[in-house]
Amino acid sequence: MSNPVLVEVTRGPRVESQHRGIVAIVDASGSTRLSLGDIAAPVFPRSAVKIFQALPLVESGAADAAGLTDAELALVCSSHNGEEIHVAGARSILAKAGLDEEALECGPQWPALGPDQDRLRRADRQPGAIYNNCSGKHAGFLCAVAHMGLPVAHYVDRDHPLQEQIHAILADITGAPLDVDVCGIDGCSIPTWAIPVERLAGAFAKVASGQGLSPARATALTRLRKSCAAHPFETAGTDRFCTKVMERFGEAAYVKTGAEGVYCAALPDLGLGVAIKIDDGATRGSEAVMAAVLQMLVAESDEDRSFLDQWARQAVETRRGVVAGTVKPSETLATALSALGR
Amino acid sequence: MSNPVLVEVTRGPRVESQHRGIVAIVDASGSTRLSLGDIAAPVFPRSAVKIFQALPLVESGAADAAGLTDAELALVCSSHNGEEIHVAGARSILAKAGLDEEALECGPQWPALGPDQDRLRRADRQPGAIYNNCSGKHAGFLCAVAHMGLPVAHYVDRDHPLQEQIHAILADITGAPLDVDVCGIDGCSIPTWAIPVERLAGAFAKVASGQGLSPARATALTRLRKSCAAHPFETAGTDRFCTKVMERFGEAAYVKTGAEGVYCAALPDLGLGVAIKIDDGATRGSEAVMAAVLQMLVAESDEDRSFLDQWARQAVETRRGVVAGTVKPSETLATALSALGR
Repeated sequence: MSNPVLVEVTRGPRVESQHRGIVAIVDASGSTRLSLGDIAAPVFPRSAVKIFQALPLVESGAADAAGLTDAELALVCSSHNGEEIHVAGARSILAKAGLDEEALECGPQWPALGPDQDRLRRADRQPGAIYNNCSGKHAGFLCAVAHMGLPVAHYVDRDHPLQEQIHAILADITGAPLDVDVCGIDGCSIPTWAIPVERLAGAFAKVASGQGLSPARATALTRLRKSCAAHPFETAGTDRFCTKVMERFGEAAYVKTGAEGVYCAALPDLGLGVAIKIDDGATRGSEAVMAAVLQMLVAESDEDRSFLDQWARQAVETRRGVVAGTVKPSETLATALSALGR
Repeated sequence: MSNPVLVEVTRGPRVESQHRGIVAIVDASGSTRLSLGDIAAPVFPRSAVKIFQALPLVESGAADAAGLTDAELALVCSSHNGEEIHVAGARSILAKAGLDEEALECGPQWPALGPDQDRLRRADRQPGAIYNNCSGKHAGFLCAVAHMGLPVAHYVDRDHPLQEQIHAILADITGAPLDVDVCGIDGCSIPTWAIPVERLAGAFAKVASGQGLSPARATALTRLRKSCAAHPFETAGTDRFCTKVMERFGEAAYVKTGAEGVYCAALPDLGLGVAIKIDDGATRGSEAVMAAVLQMLVAESDEDRSFLDQWARQAVETRRGVVAGTVKPSETLATALSALGR
């Protein structure tokens, strides 16, 4: 059984490419409100669960002890472009933890944007771990580890107490048996646990509603979610979908991308959680699906819907800027979303 | 009906992503030797058919009249990185045609590699059409147009005599009815005609064998193919699959990529043509399939097979260079290729 086509990429009169995948939308009571594809299939959420990975930092009191700002908490939940504001923020978190970038174990990565890459090349420098899109998260890990008196070295390893805490949090909040047979290594060297898409959506419904969580955990997740809404640039950066959506919709839509075609969202006004996985890993696919979901569930006006068309009906252009095709929701996805209504 | 999974992307113990698609391998007699997926489905070949789009340049005598070198003919068939050697080559072709880059209608594109982008940014310049990955092809178009006395302006339009010639060539060599309902606009503004995958493979079998072609056309295609084999860097550039394969295998494997997951090959020693389309458009998928095909059909040694593993079993690494997974042929593809044998 194959998952349904969710997104079509047209060129002229024909569909040139297509993206299959899975979508689950779950409400605060845990009921599945929309299901496309094999929603019971475990998928690696990758960076989409950074908000949960940030919980030890907040729940241990480390964030308060270090005096982290809301902007810094947003950066801890981010997959950022490695722009100057992101790099400065990660350095600030490390300094508040009494550490420096030497302690980062996420590995080096070039900044996402050309001008930022230029700056490094012109200075004849190689990219360090501080430019890694996960450096905010790792700075947060180190802040938590330092506060809790845990070993700093090897904080990324599966058997480090911090990663064991995160594992327990993910298993608890998703209700999924996260055994070692669903454990891979993420690009930034920490464990990533494959979670059924419907369970992932359920976890984000808890973020949206607070239901099914201890008061302390609900408070911590609300704090992180509101920090992202207040500082959307810190969550991703220039021209990024996460940033643009949260700039426009504020607290109405917490959205987070993950590598290999994952997107998750918490919609607090509706108490809904959303999880998307594109089979082939394409970001253009996951963004188009999430934008279509937001058009149906969050957009309040034609202007909102038109704004989301940047991703839900993204133009495929020639190098001269002529529209040659469109990346758009399939009939299957559009019909399912219509049936969902508001 | 969905096309089969051809490539799996693993992470730790699980398949994280997968690529479905179509593969056809056709022999010189026109018989299909391998068929996976809907090989009758028309797909846009995009840049994979540049060797055919170069035929008017050669067959009209324009290439000889202008004194184009073999390296320049390779560039005419290329999708290049916009490196210095490519830009210089495209300028040389234009100069030999008595034109300059102002005549290019392919649209601007940044060079593929960071250092080349830097150079433009440092000079505070925007990328011109000369850096477009198709500038060699377009320089060749202009050289042909100038020689034949056709209008220079709008040489990219579907109703320009040059594009009509190319349309007729593609219809003839593929035997496919290339009506307007299969015509899209390519990224470089010229028409792209959707062709059934098996017909595309058949056309490349003709390139490989010369069978089913007029002597003049067979000679022209052999000249273009040998030019690419002799000048692989001009066909793509640094770290590119097309370049690396032709550097290693010379005339034994003419390979050409196309956007949105297309790869084609002509294997002259075997008289075979190969055409691949990945449903979702992913290049990592099309490269993995082509590498697996070449391992079965062209590799002569363990070293050859190991060389092709760079793409056929590409490591998925963490930012610290630890192997976290693999991009690899699916069981379906591996079994079909094994059955094909040598």
